[in-house]
Amino acid sequence: MNCSIARALDQVGEWWSLLIVRECVLGTTRFDEFQERLGIARNILTSRLNRLTELGILEKAPLEGQEKRQGYRLTPKGEELFPVLVALLQWGDKWAPGPHGGSVRYVERDTGKELEPVGPKSADGCPLGFRDVRMMAGPGATASTLARIDARNQAVLGDSQAPIRQEPGAK
Amino acid sequence: MNCSIARALDQVGEWWSLLIVRECVLGTTRFDEFQERLGIARNILTSRLNRLTELGILEKAPLEGQEKRQGYRLTPKGEELFPVLVALLQWGDKWAPGPHGGSVRYVERDTGKELEPVGPKSADGCPLGFRDVRMMAGPGATASTLARIDARNQAVLGDSQAPIRQEPGAK
Repeated sequence: MNCSIARALDQVGEWWSLLIVRECVLGTTRFDEFQERLGIARNILTSRLNRLTELGILEKAPLEGQEKRQGYRLTPKGEELFPVLVALLQWGDKWAPGPHGGSVRYVERDTGKELEPVGPKSADGCPLGFRDVRMMAGPGATASTLARIDARNQAVLGDSQAPIRQEPGAK
Repeated sequence: MNCSIARALDQVGEWWSLLIVRECVLGTTRFDEFQERLGIARNILTSRLNRLTELGILEKAPLEGQEKRQGYRLTPKGEELFPVLVALLQWGDKWAPGPHGGSVRYVERDTGKELEPVGPKSADGCPLGFRDVRMMAGPGATASTLARIDARNQAVLGDSQAPIRQEPGAK
């Protein structure tokens, strides 16, 4: 399939679930449409749709104009996967393009402007790479997480000491 | 493992490859470290590392202080997966948190500020959901892609007509 997301996933993992979420973003609602557009076996599709529904990423809803039949749509939890899809799409556009370039562009509905590259940015708007980012312990950190964070900041940032458990007022 | 990325992937797909990229971001370089930290079978790890290296996402490099032994590190192509990881991490923090909250926070190295949520934004900085985004044909679009884009904008945006092949000057 001529799609940067699919190509990115072809490189970085098997990912039917996110491809199903992507289909929802593209307006797909009916089982048969998912099946045809993804070229996925019906039993695998059934299992993935059930799992996504159990997880609260999808929900069943009556199909428009056919109130007795059910389709699938994203919940708010599912809709918030959109940044993941856009990040994958943009990476795929750059690093795994099709022979004739990207097949789809995304623009802001109200202005027609191309979406900017997504990703972490500094306060003045510059992209931050992973070496520009310090890890710190969150509330759920265990002792082994703390040790891991120390080791990571030392290895990647070259911290001679690792002042990472402090700065509680940092925002 | 107490990590929001791992939990997000537990929900949305099998994804050893991105977990390996994540390890690289955390400073892991040696085969044995990947193996131990990911809890992955050696033969599967070998096959994933080889594939990521073939794809140009990882490259082999001498280990620091042990110039005769090789480890793995991200290429520029691999480093640019960082936005994908951050998007997954933030989604996992919100929608699949651990019992005590996130275990790791990411802050800007130079300022100590928390990273903002990543994702597409409007010109004035508001997050854009998928209904705020119009699809348009890119240079690689085929006839079936064009039909798909039309159908999508109609289904999701409610376009009565689909003026999506135009606006070549839009930026």
